[in-house]
Amino acid sequence: MIRLNGIRHDGSVVPFDLADRGLTLGDGLFETMAVFGGVVHRLDDHLRRLQLGLSVLGFEVPRERIEADLAATAAESPGSGGVIRLTVTRGAGARGLLPPEEPDPTVIVSLAPFDPTQVGVPARLAVASTRRNDRSPLSRLKSLGYLDNVLALSEARGTGATDALLLNTADRVASASAANIFAVRDGRIETPPASDGVLPGVIRSRVLELAPTLGFEAMERSLDLVDLAGAEAVFLTNSVRLLQPVTEIDGVPVHERSGAVGIVLGALLEEIRAECGVGPLD
Amino acid sequence: MIRLNGIRHDGSVVPFDLADRGLTLGDGLFETMAVFGGVVHRLDDHLRRLQLGLSVLGFEVPRERIEADLAATAAESPGSGGVIRLTVTRGAGARGLLPPEEPDPTVIVSLAPFDPTQVGVPARLAVASTRRNDRSPLSRLKSLGYLDNVLALSEARGTGATDALLLNTADRVASASAANIFAVRDGRIETPPASDGVLPGVIRSRVLELAPTLGFEAMERSLDLVDLAGAEAVFLTNSVRLLQPVTEIDGVPVHERSGAVGIVLGALLEEIRAECGVGPLD
Repeated sequence: MIRLNGIRHDGSVVPFDLADRGLTLGDGLFETMAVFGGVVHRLDDHLRRLQLGLSVLGFEVPRERIEADLAATAAESPGSGGVIRLTVTRGAGARGLLPPEEPDPTVIVSLAPFDPTQVGVPARLAVASTRRNDRSPLSRLKSLGYLDNVLALSEARGTGATDALLLNTADRVASASAANIFAVRDGRIETPPASDGVLPGVIRSRVLELAPTLGFEAMERSLDLVDLAGAEAVFLTNSVRLLQPVTEIDGVPVHERSGAVGIVLGALLEEIRAECGVGPLD
Repeated sequence: MIRLNGIRHDGSVVPFDLADRGLTLGDGLFETMAVFGGVVHRLDDHLRRLQLGLSVLGFEVPRERIEADLAATAAESPGSGGVIRLTVTRGAGARGLLPPEEPDPTVIVSLAPFDPTQVGVPARLAVASTRRNDRSPLSRLKSLGYLDNVLALSEARGTGATDALLLNTADRVASASAANIFAVRDGRIETPPASDGVLPGVIRSRVLELAPTLGFEAMERSLDLVDLAGAEAVFLTNSVRLLQPVTEIDGVPVHERSGAVGIVLGALLEEIRAECGVGPLD
């Protein structure tokens, strides 16, 4: 099921302008959101991040227009949970890079089933040869240009790992292919700052906010591979898998000895249940 | 006029799978080619670069399939010249980054009129705040993720410049928003190597090959802003504007005192006339 500019379609093949700059130039943003009991988890956080990104790209889409499509889609989400992808592009344009002066943005909302088996699933990381471009504002936005991450993930899978570990251009840790990364060090929960080329993830923010209520100090701090190798735990977060313990980096085991992984995941699951009335594993 | 997977459509709004990874993830490549007298200029160079790029992305599209669509499109190009855009994506995929094991690629070929007034048009450059990611293989491919360049161009236009000058993450000169850059220094024609985060442009290669026949030494060499400031000439190349003299960088005039700009542009125009039977300015 998909909605293109407010029109619902059963399948994904629909009349579409091939001059759309989302397709021709990656000129757009997206959000991936989990839905439980018909409620989008942390909807406000996702929409705020999207609007912030659109201001960097320099075009606007009324929040009401997006919310209406999201609400209609969430209402169709199965009881077992769904995953909504919201894509916003600058719309069609003439040949060349220069944006149209009065863009007519495209809004696409699609729904896929939620897969509870991915929640908390352990990750084995391989360091990617491609680097995340911390020198571009796009490294802090969820823009459509995800091919670097696709190549990194494919490279990691080719080595037997389950996900990629992306460093930035200064050899600092940035993220996994589609997840933020945390390390527990000296009992503190640390994650790289956005300035290291990191997407400010919605679950990432929740972990930073929830940690103190769970007895952990939490902070943004640049990390390198040596920091991860010495960590008491390493984990990933994103909006669909929530929290994944990292059990291996480039073949070297990571042993969770902090207790944080189970506690933080438990708190996230509880929070979702409180917000949505039903949890991902219910 | 547009061809989607071999099917010709008069307009650009056509049935299209919104799960296409070109749209959702920027998972594809493109080429922009000039057509004169129904002949695609340097077709082999463009197709070779595309196939090289597809091998990095890890999927294949038979060259014959692409050539048939290009030939049919070129045959429809007006006598005054045309610009063909060829887009190849990995095709539709399920949610997430992982490529489908057996991709069904999408091939889009569109035709726009050629604008002879853009040939040789002078460029005033402004250094972009975003950097080109020389640490990613994508910086050497014409992938769909062009949003960095879009932002750089928009930023440049906002300052009154006509194009952006992109540096790489090591402060070296990489390119303009959609063109390669050359400097003439001590009578030598120099352009940054691909390893500096540079797309190996088709016209760029021709300039390197033609220069010796025109009495100039030519070579790949890393350049920084100081090198450009001291140059006897700076110019841009791409497949549509061919060669543009740079007259200003961040407000500082660049004076062409090498004679190279006119000589090289003249040689390019002559070569096109020889290959296509008609030139861009005829």
